[in-house]
Amino acid sequence: MLTEPTLAQSIRERFIAVRGATMRFMAPLTAEDMMVQSCAEASPLKWHIAHTTWFFETFVLSEFAENYQEFHPDFRWLFNSYYKSLGDMPEKKLRASFSRPPLDQILEYRGHVDAAINNLLTSSVNEEALRRIVLGLQHEQQHLELAATDIKHAFFTNPLHPAYTERDLITTEAIAPPLEWITFSPPAPGVVEFGVTPRAEEVEEFAFDNETPAHKRFLAPYRLASRLVTCSEYLAFMDDDAYRRPELWLSEGWDRMREEGWEAPLYWRRDTSASSGWTVFTLEGWRPLETLSETPVCHLSFFEADAFARWSGHRLPTEFEWEYAAVVANPAEGNWLEDGILHPAVAQGGVGVEQLYGDVWEWTQSPYSGYPGYAPLPGALGEYNGKFMSSQMVLRGGSCVTPEAHIRATYRNFFAPGTRWQFSGLRLARDGAE
Amino acid sequence: MLTEPTLAQSIRERFIAVRGATMRFMAPLTAEDMMVQSCAEASPLKWHIAHTTWFFETFVLSEFAENYQEFHPDFRWLFNSYYKSLGDMPEKKLRASFSRPPLDQILEYRGHVDAAINNLLTSSVNEEALRRIVLGLQHEQQHLELAATDIKHAFFTNPLHPAYTERDLITTEAIAPPLEWITFSPPAPGVVEFGVTPRAEEVEEFAFDNETPAHKRFLAPYRLASRLVTCSEYLAFMDDDAYRRPELWLSEGWDRMREEGWEAPLYWRRDTSASSGWTVFTLEGWRPLETLSETPVCHLSFFEADAFARWSGHRLPTEFEWEYAAVVANPAEGNWLEDGILHPAVAQGGVGVEQLYGDVWEWTQSPYSGYPGYAPLPGALGEYNGKFMSSQMVLRGGSCVTPEAHIRATYRNFFAPGTRWQFSGLRLARDGAE
Amino acid sequence: MLTEPTLAQSIRERFIAVRGATMRFMAPLTAEDMMVQSCAEASPLKWHIAHTTWFFETFVLSEFAENYQEFHPDFRWLFNSYYKSLGDMPEKKLRASFSRPPLDQILEYRGHVDAAINNLLTSSVNEEALRRIVLGLQHEQQHLELAATDIKHAFFTNPLHPAYTERDLITTEAIAPPLEWITFSPPAPGVVEFGVTPRAEEVEEFAFDNETPAHKRFLAPYRLASRLVTCSEYLAFMDDDAYRRPELWLSEGWDRMREEGWEAPLYWRRDTSASSGWTVFTLEGWRPLETLSETPVCHLSFFEADAFARWSGHRLPTEFEWEYAAVVANPAEGNWLEDGILHPAVAQGGVGVEQLYGDVWEWTQSPYSGYPGYAPLPGALGEYNGKFMSSQMVLRGGSCVTPEAHIRATYRNFFAPGTRWQFSGLRLARDGAE
Amino acid sequence: MLTEPTLAQSIRERFIAVRGATMRFMAPLTAEDMMVQSCAEASPLKWHIAHTTWFFETFVLSEFAENYQEFHPDFRWLFNSYYKSLGDMPEKKLRASFSRPPLDQILEYRGHVDAAINNLLTSSVNEEALRRIVLGLQHEQQHLELAATDIKHAFFTNPLHPAYTERDLITTEAIAPPLEWITFSPPAPGVVEFGVTPRAEEVEEFAFDNETPAHKRFLAPYRLASRLVTCSEYLAFMDDDAYRRPELWLSEGWDRMREEGWEAPLYWRRDTSASSGWTVFTLEGWRPLETLSETPVCHLSFFEADAFARWSGHRLPTEFEWEYAAVVANPAEGNWLEDGILHPAVAQGGVGVEQLYGDVWEWTQSPYSGYPGYAPLPGALGEYNGKFMSSQMVLRGGSCVTPEAHIRATYRNFFAPGTRWQFSGLRLARDGAE
Repeated sequence: MLTEPTLAQSIRERFIAVRGATMRFMAPLTAEDMMVQSCAEASPLKWHIAHTTWFFETFVLSEFAENYQEFHPDFRWLFNSYYKSLGDMPEKKLRASFSRPPLDQILEYRGHVDAAINNLLTSSVNEEALRRIVLGLQHEQQHLELAATDIKHAFFTNPLHPAYTERDLITTEAIAPPLEWITFSPPAPGVVEFGVTPRAEEVEEFAFDNETPAHKRFLAPYRLASRLVTCSEYLAFMDDDAYRRPELWLSEGWDRMREEGWEAPLYWRRDTSASSGWTVFTLEGWRPLETLSETPVCHLSFFEADAFARWSGHRLPTEFEWEYAAVVANPAEGNWLEDGILHPAVAQGGVGVEQLYGDVWEWTQSPYSGYPGYAPLPGALGEYNGKFMSSQMVLRGGSCVTPEAHIRATYRNFFAPGTRWQFSGLRLARDGAE
Repeated sequence: MLTEPTLAQSIRERFIAVRGATMRFMAPLTAEDMMVQSCAEASPLKWHIAHTTWFFETFVLSEFAENYQEFHPDFRWLFNSYYKSLGDMPEKKLRASFSRPPLDQILEYRGHVDAAINNLLTSSVNEEALRRIVLGLQHEQQHLELAATDIKHAFFTNPLHPAYTERDLITTEAIAPPLEWITFSPPAPGVVEFGVTPRAEEVEEFAFDNETPAHKRFLAPYRLASRLVTCSEYLAFMDDDAYRRPELWLSEGWDRMREEGWEAPLYWRRDTSASSGWTVFTLEGWRPLETLSETPVCHLSFFEADAFARWSGHRLPTEFEWEYAAVVANPAEGNWLEDGILHPAVAQGGVGVEQLYGDVWEWTQSPYSGYPGYAPLPGALGEYNGKFMSSQMVLRGGSCVTPEAHIRATYRNFFAPGTRWQFSGLRLARDGAE
Repeated sequence: MLTEPTLAQSIRERFIAVRGATMRFMAPLTAEDMMVQSCAEASPLKWHIAHTTWFFETFVLSEFAENYQEFHPDFRWLFNSYYKSLGDMPEKKLRASFSRPPLDQILEYRGHVDAAINNLLTSSVNEEALRRIVLGLQHEQQHLELAATDIKHAFFTNPLHPAYTERDLITTEAIAPPLEWITFSPPAPGVVEFGVTPRAEEVEEFAFDNETPAHKRFLAPYRLASRLVTCSEYLAFMDDDAYRRPELWLSEGWDRMREEGWEAPLYWRRDTSASSGWTVFTLEGWRPLETLSETPVCHLSFFEADAFARWSGHRLPTEFEWEYAAVVANPAEGNWLEDGILHPAVAQGGVGVEQLYGDVWEWTQSPYSGYPGYAPLPGALGEYNGKFMSSQMVLRGGSCVTPEAHIRATYRNFFAPGTRWQFSGLRLARDGAE
Repeated sequence: MLTEPTLAQSIRERFIAVRGATMRFMAPLTAEDMMVQSCAEASPLKWHIAHTTWFFETFVLSEFAENYQEFHPDFRWLFNSYYKSLGDMPEKKLRASFSRPPLDQILEYRGHVDAAINNLLTSSVNEEALRRIVLGLQHEQQHLELAATDIKHAFFTNPLHPAYTERDLITTEAIAPPLEWITFSPPAPGVVEFGVTPRAEEVEEFAFDNETPAHKRFLAPYRLASRLVTCSEYLAFMDDDAYRRPELWLSEGWDRMREEGWEAPLYWRRDTSASSGWTVFTLEGWRPLETLSETPVCHLSFFEADAFARWSGHRLPTEFEWEYAAVVANPAEGNWLEDGILHPAVAQGGVGVEQLYGDVWEWTQSPYSGYPGYAPLPGALGEYNGKFMSSQMVLRGGSCVTPEAHIRATYRNFFAPGTRWQFSGLRLARDGAE
């Protein structure tokens, strides 16, 4: 079955846009910067550039492009991340040893694959190939976010703490509106449909397998905070000795916190020259905390978000409370990667919930697991999401380093509860209608 | 408010029964046996004897018994397990250094506290004290199960592999009935109440805080296997090379399995003299696997249970699917600690689901978290359950080393997904009505 | 070749004395105490009792006693410590799981072996058998010292910190004499013979293989401190901020010290109720440091001894400087296990060097390696000493928990430089004659 | 005191030569290559370039060059390796995060410092400054060797295994002469002087502090193998099951070998396409072992060298046996870095001992410690050698990646006994004259 040219054309435009966005983000960085792998969660940026290209080569070109010449025989296993069904791959921690192939060759690889995809999209193209390209673009956007996340950590680890950008866009003067509680009350009998079952005929209507299938859940009335928790609110929690009060913490969180010596969010450092006593590392470099007080607190582990919620007398929302609000409130705005701020921004106030999208990934109290009826994609792509469904928590809404077009109400991100290198914060929730 | 004598009397009888059961279990063991702590999950049995006594002294006698003389000033912190609000406690791994106080003194401590509780229960006693005693008995039953679990591991670790008992009660000849699928289909609109909200006036109607409150959930039709998975079924999974096929495993499970070198359930050892090629350690000592083929497989991690389910083409049930079945089917029987077999027994066949209770704890696919509206008990007792609500999975139904009176349909057990020392197995589930 | 009855008789008397000393040391301890293994270096005392018996069974009875009936077939591998040529053995850390065999059975084992050795020694006995028995007695004495060392650590680890003895023998009031420098100046050309080459015909003239063979070394003139370094001298080092001054430490020592949080010798704890600010754990329980100020400092790692020497402007002696002094000065006295103090005692003053023997093992600056021409014993006994000749340092002179008859001028003890659980201290040295 | 121009001039020439050699070695490498840090022992090559420059800035220019402008204020702590007296420094493992400063800036730094040293050396220069420059050049040569060692490991870690050079210089066809025993017998009374006491007035007569002072030792007659042990000899050891025979190994070595899974020297990999069954990674890439059989075996730990010696019935030499032979035999030749082979070469045969210098560092049986009368340099430079004098072994003679001018008979290298990434092999020794 061949698709209409207009669909392929539309996907081709997105392909160009998404692939271009990745390279635009890399512009201020050197080949040396792209070698750094500064924590177990991170990869060198050079690897991200190669791996996203590998994804198109492996899952699209090698299966659907006639006469495709693979760029380099070793790249097929070299840039595999974790797809065990495709064979062995290098250990993740070895990625920092990939000085060869040099960046130049990887850029050539990228050009080679881009041309072949372009070629495919301008000829008669199989519908499954189109689906795979759409998946590859979502994948690319995830890695673009990871690149922003990883280079922040790399520069933080570098004792000189270079800045990614000299631009000065982080809001520092606005005041966040007072926190209000917004009630959500599903109609009787309280059964709501969540997730999505993709319509086979709508190729561009993308969802990851972990968002599927659409299914029913009972949802009791609840309230959500109108905005995210701010740095100054989090500082009050710290000042209330929270990092030394075991009753506020999950047991696993307490142990982790002590083991790693946490006493503030990641990227906060004590600084006696700041009036707040703290300075915060951003992609613009260090900023005194007092200039960021009203911005959403960021780079929290789930354990810290959960402890804050307990301390505040409230709780984290479930991922379904978040999704229902996103569907009902249907907010249009967010602070995205494209805004170029690369840091969460102060809430603006107004009616109802804001900051649902962008700014920071919102930790929910929902462990990451498969929806009723969940089935992973067939073949190696089945390893994309499903095999991570243990000991992780769901986050919702995207962040200030997420590409805008990447997110939707049903989107589920997930991280182990002790990770903090991603742009993660929280919104409070409580039971019942007002 | 004083309670009627009959309630206190009834609780006094349970107190005597439950406390006696603990000591009866210890009868074949020496003071030296009770010193062993053979893995991070386990404690020495001597410690269990002391800690359960400590629980009554700390949460009942010191608060509610007039003129109570504490047995020893150091015992208040020495035998605290993990209640951080009560102050510091010794590290868990140090419990193996408690050669002093000697067992004799701990037995004296136990007598002292038993007498004081008896005294309290035969005088005018506060209702909250009664609640605490009921909680203390549930706590004691949990530790009796842990004692059985821990001594099995201790004897397995001892290179001589002594047996706990010379009795020969483990069923070895019966044949398990064929597996059938039993359909459960909640009436429209599919909203079912789970958990329980305790009635304040019914002191003996006990539930842990993690079973509360009663709350609604949507439940779609599903089918449960009529019995537990057997050793011979599990052997087929192993023989299908399952421990070397990454596509069957959660990523975290695969890594853990490789790291710890799992190739069979815990307590299975290769043995060329057995026709099955395996021998299994039980509380009766080693048994060739072929004599246990039809018994439920036991001492699986969640990762193994989950991989088996995936391999079989089915899935693990949710904890709510289990609970609904337990309520609807209302099964009366189980293989409990009191049966003295101390190993899972072969299913007997019949109509509907069997083995829901006893035999093995059934891993569910439900991560352990708080129910909507969940609130921990006030004070130090709030640390009993709530602080463990991360990175653990729910198990249901009790095991062959659980005291019968301990379990109910709403009971939630929980362990980290990689633990195997407890008596844990699985039952299969699948979507939809037949 | 058969030996004369008088030699066998003499060895039989020593056998009875040495074996009896072990059991006398155990008298105040319970079977539970003998289960504890509180650090990687230590073993449960029950294991020491069994292993020393195993040594006689394995290396004497099974080879030289006609018709010897072994006590239990499993004991041959169960109580092997580290002799790999004899086959596999349990991992050292599992010794704490040996609740079975019970202590009673091990005592029976001991009686069985004692009777068989007695029998052998009262019949015609092979000379090699006698040599092995003499070796076994030296081995037993080493394990008696280890038992004292291990139970001290076990009781220190127990949060109740029980005392081994209620006797009150630790000297607390004497004053150590001022430190003097004693010159040693070997005659020209400075070549001295060290170590010993055993005379085959003198069976009782025992030396471990690591003390052999006699060989020459050049030794330049040097001075030794007249006595050991005291606690008050060590406190001055601590008060001079020594644990925070990297220039005083070997690099490996600095890292180890930081990693393990050392800020004083092992067994010292801060105590604001003591005028010195410190309290010290002994086999008599806690003692305020001010009552021990003049006693030799004890339970130091090599790194601490070395740092102290550097701080003082002097150095540690070589093992040969110690040995030459021991031969020349030929001191007769020492504070030994038999004295029952079980703690280093204050120096008494007088002419020349004192405290060379007993009190504390003296760290030397000599790495532990084989002497020129060194050859291990043949067979499994070759594993006794030789295989540990890397990354360890030599200590000389015995300690307050060494049996008096165990030591000689050529005796070489050895430990890894970071260990502190043994009774180890130091004596200063410097170059040149006065 | 001012020195004569001729001395400064001579040092200036060496400065230019040595600094140039470092940069020549880097020529085939990219900035990305110089980012890799592939094991705990290694550093990125970019760091070596910066650190050797830092050494001159810190120890020469900042103390002795009037009006010297430091290149960058952060570099003073950023490129400090381990001199704690100079203040804090970044953790070693963070060096892989130094994408900034970029290589270009580090080359600029290098140029800046080179110019300043040149300036100093062409003006009136203090004698102590000259000594420091000479020390800095020795330091630079050590880091040049480390750079060769580290890039070999980096390329081995890279899954593509790139070659450093395409040149094909590794000897593969020559046959090593039969091993002969060469006797060395010091004249009576056997007292020989070792080490060196530098003459203050001879600035260029350099020795590290660990080679000082000259001192006497007794040395008994001994024999040395005429050449190094070859790969084919080592293969015989492997084929004799040596990696599975505990009696051949030091206990620490056995444990380390099992823990790390050694079954051959580092850089050997099983390869069924090679007739020998092995292939070996070199700086020229992979070479089948059969083409290297006659070359000296390389990249052994001390434990492997020691086990080989034991297996062969001989032993490792002491460092003094090596030094005496080097002084007496006074060999002139060696396979050095300047030869460009970058791999040990086949022995050529002839009279007496050969390969004493170059090819591979020879493990000795001597633990690394200070000579009698040893005193470290004053100030921060005292940290250069002295603080590593524990748990390391001495190696002698230099290797095929050592600059020729760097070595002398008294030179002592040292590594922990388990390290294998350096070019280390062995020569056999035995007691007595023929």
